[in-house]
Amino acid sequence: MTVHLPKGTRDHLPERMTQRLHVVEVMRSVFRRYGFEPLETPAFERIETLMGKYGDEGEQLIYKILKRGKGGERGEVDLALRYDLTVPLARVIAMNPGLKMPFKRFQTQPVWRADRPQKGRFREFVQCDVDTVGTTSMMADAECLAVLHDCLVELGFSTFTIRLNHRGLLRAIVDAAGLSDMETTVLVAVDKLDKIGREGVDRELAGFGVSVEAIEKLWSMFSLRGLDALDELTCSLGDSGSAAISELKEVIDYALAMGVSGERLKFDPVLARGLGYYTGPVFEAEVVEPKIGSIAGGGRYDGLVGVFSKREVPAVGVSLGLDRVVAVMEDLGLLSDCSSGSTVMVAVYSEELKAEAVRVATAFRAAGVATTLVLDRVGKLGKQFKSANSSGIPWVAVVGPDDVSEGRVSLKEMATGSQFTLTLFEAVEKLRA
Amino acid sequence: MTVHLPKGTRDHLPERMTQRLHVVEVMRSVFRRYGFEPLETPAFERIETLMGKYGDEGEQLIYKILKRGKGGERGEVDLALRYDLTVPLARVIAMNPGLKMPFKRFQTQPVWRADRPQKGRFREFVQCDVDTVGTTSMMADAECLAVLHDCLVELGFSTFTIRLNHRGLLRAIVDAAGLSDMETTVLVAVDKLDKIGREGVDRELAGFGVSVEAIEKLWSMFSLRGLDALDELTCSLGDSGSAAISELKEVIDYALAMGVSGERLKFDPVLARGLGYYTGPVFEAEVVEPKIGSIAGGGRYDGLVGVFSKREVPAVGVSLGLDRVVAVMEDLGLLSDCSSGSTVMVAVYSEELKAEAVRVATAFRAAGVATTLVLDRVGKLGKQFKSANSSGIPWVAVVGPDDVSEGRVSLKEMATGSQFTLTLFEAVEKLRA
Repeated sequence: MTVHLPKGTRDHLPERMTQRLHVVEVMRSVFRRYGFEPLETPAFERIETLMGKYGDEGEQLIYKILKRGKGGERGEVDLALRYDLTVPLARVIAMNPGLKMPFKRFQTQPVWRADRPQKGRFREFVQCDVDTVGTTSMMADAECLAVLHDCLVELGFSTFTIRLNHRGLLRAIVDAAGLSDMETTVLVAVDKLDKIGREGVDRELAGFGVSVEAIEKLWSMFSLRGLDALDELTCSLGDSGSAAISELKEVIDYALAMGVSGERLKFDPVLARGLGYYTGPVFEAEVVEPKIGSIAGGGRYDGLVGVFSKREVPAVGVSLGLDRVVAVMEDLGLLSDCSSGSTVMVAVYSEELKAEAVRVATAFRAAGVATTLVLDRVGKLGKQFKSANSSGIPWVAVVGPDDVSEGRVSLKEMATGSQFTLTLFEAVEKLRA
Repeated sequence: MTVHLPKGTRDHLPERMTQRLHVVEVMRSVFRRYGFEPLETPAFERIETLMGKYGDEGEQLIYKILKRGKGGERGEVDLALRYDLTVPLARVIAMNPGLKMPFKRFQTQPVWRADRPQKGRFREFVQCDVDTVGTTSMMADAECLAVLHDCLVELGFSTFTIRLNHRGLLRAIVDAAGLSDMETTVLVAVDKLDKIGREGVDRELAGFGVSVEAIEKLWSMFSLRGLDALDELTCSLGDSGSAAISELKEVIDYALAMGVSGERLKFDPVLARGLGYYTGPVFEAEVVEPKIGSIAGGGRYDGLVGVFSKREVPAVGVSLGLDRVVAVMEDLGLLSDCSSGSTVMVAVYSEELKAEAVRVATAFRAAGVATTLVLDRVGKLGKQFKSANSSGIPWVAVVGPDDVSEGRVSLKEMATGSQFTLTLFEAVEKLRA
C-alpha cells in the first residue's frame, strides 16, 4: 500500500519544525510584551457559524465535516474546519460577555482553505494573529503596528517597510474624484497597480467608463507617498478626509513613540487590503530587498467581531502567516542558527560499558543538556561518530575503559576535531557553554 | 443569532491557555533533553490512510471530510481528521525512507474523536507523544519511562507510581494457566480488576467456563506485585516467560540508571493497556494520593509503525494527554503560579500625559517586561487601578505631573499597596526582579 499526504498539505519534519517553533516563540514573546494573552479555539466550528462570512468564493474553499452516524450516511454536514481565526474570535466574544474589554488576544493556530495548491501556498497553514477587541483608540492600532514591526525586527528582517493607509481616506479620494458610486470598481483596479502598472490600471478604469479627468484627479492623490503627503491630502480633500487623516496621524505618532522606525513606515494612499472587512487604518509589511512582496498585515475592522453579538464591537489586529514568514526567512538565510537536535551524543564504547554511557547521558540530561544516547551499539565507535556528524550533533561523549578507571569522560567537538578528557562536571560545564 | 461551540469542544481562554502552554513547554523541554525532535503532521489524512486502523468502534468516531465541489454534493468523502498521532507517524516513516534510524520524535497536536462527551472527556484533545522508531533496544523503552517520570516530576506531581508490565509476560501467564485459546477473554476480564474487584473478575471468568483451578493458577501469578515478583515468576513460568522477564529486567535496570525513582516503579502483572497494539513492555502512570487514576502511559508496539512500509518497524512510545494532565494539575493545585497576563499596567494620568504613558510602556516592553497600556483613559486613575487588580496584573505604573518634571515614574505593587517613585531604569529593574 502506498500512502500519500492530502493534497496541499505537508509534514513538518524535525529541522523545519524546530525553525517553526523558534519563529512562533519569538512572535509570542513580542505578543506577550504588548499585553496580548493566548487564546485557542477548536479546529472546527458549527457550519452555521462559518457560513455567510467569507463570500461565495471563500465558502467553496471550506472543508465541511460529515455528521457522525445516520445523518452522515445521507451526506449531511454539521461542522466545518475554521477558515480563519477572526470568526472564531467573534464567536468567543459573543459567548463570553464577561470578558474584560479591551480584550487583547493572540492566537497561533492552523486554518484550512481548499485553495488551488501553488508554490508556497498550502491548504493547511498557521496564522499568528493578535487582535485588540473593544476599543476605538488609535493606540490599539499603533500597538498592532508596533507588534508587527518588533516581530520582524526580532526575527532578523533588516530591509522591510510597513505601508500604511486608512480606508476612510481611500473612500474620500474616490469621492473627491466624483466616483462615489464606483468605489469597488476603482479599488479593484487600483489594487492591481503592482502587477499591471499605472497604464494597466488606467486602461481598466477607462474600460469601466471612468473619464480621463476623473482618472487624472485620482492619480493626483494616489501618487502621493510618504508621511508628508498627509498634509497635501488634507488640503485636497478638505472636510471629507479630515477624520481619516487625523486618525492616521494619531496612529503614526503613537507608533513612532512605541519605537516603530519612521524610515520603515510609509504612507501609501493606494493600499486597500481587500474590499470588505477593513474600516479604518490598514497596514502591510513587505520585504523590499530582495523584492519578495507582502509578508504580513492588518488593520481596523469594526464590523466583523460584533457579528454574533447584539452590539458593535470595534477591533483591530495584525496577522502573520507562519508558513510565509518561515519560507521568506529561509530564502533570506535567517534560519541558519536553528539547530534541531541534541547538543551531545553519548556513544557506547562496548556492551560492558553501556551502563557507563547511560550514567553519563543521565548526568547531561539532569543538567538540561539535550542528549542523544546511542541505543543500539552499531559496530565500531567510528560509525557512531559518523552518525553524530550526519545528524548535526556538535559533540560526542564516550567513556572508554581508561576513562572509567579515572572517573572521566572523553568529549569530542565534531566541528574542530578537538578532544578533551574531563570530569563529568567539567564536561557538563563545557556543553552548557 | 445565537452561536454555540461544537459539541464536546471548548475554547481555551487566556488563563487556561497560559497553563496549557506552560505544561506543553515543560514537557517539550524534557522531550528535547532526551534527544527527541519535533514533528507536526496535517490535521487531516486521506481517508484510506486512517481506515482499518482503529477497529469498527474507533472508525465510527472519526470525523470525515466531504470532498470539495461536485463529489461533496454527492456526499463523497476523501479526508478525515486524525484520530491519533501514531498512524500519521507510520505514514511519515513510510514516506521518508531517508530518515535516520532510530527516529526519535515528539509531537504535541490535537486529535479528534466523536466520543460520547462526558466530564473531562472532549472530542478535541491534545496528545503529547514521544516515540522512538527503528530500534528494539530496551534502552529506548527505558528512555520513554524516564521521559514520563521526568515530565511528571517537573510538572510538580509528588505522589505518583508508574506501573510496568510486559505483554509477553501476560501471555505466558495465561498460557501457564492453560487458557491460551482464551487470552482475549481473560485480558478483558482482568482489565476490570480496578472496577469490579477480584470477585467480579472471577465471576466473569467462571461465566466463560474457566475452571476454578485455572482461575486459582492465574491469581497465583496475577496477584504478585513489586519488582521482586519477577524472580518468583521466573520460577513459575520457566522458559515461556524468560524472554519477557529478561526484557523487563533490562528496562528496569536502565530506567533506574536514568534516574527513575525505584519507589515509583511498580511491576504489575495485570497491566494490559488494551488488547491489540502493544507487543512488549507497557507502562502507565497514576496519581495515588488523591486516587485520581491513570494520567499517561505507553509501551512497545512493534506492529503498527510499519503498516505502510514494506518492513517491520519496531517502536516504543509514551503519550501524555494534555487536557487530562492539566485537569489533574488543577485539582491538585499545581497550576497556581501560572499568571496569564502582563507584569505591569501603565495607567494614563490624563489626556495630556498620554504620550508619557506610551513612553514608559515602550521602555518596559523594550526591556522584555509584559506590559498592558491603558488604551482608553476610562475616567479616574482609581478605576484603572481597579482594572489592573481584577485582571491580576501585579504592578501599576503611572506618570503624574510631578513625575514628569522629575523624570520619574510611580510604581505601585497591587498585593501590598507599596508605592515607589523611581527612575525608569530602577522601575525596569524592579519589574524584572
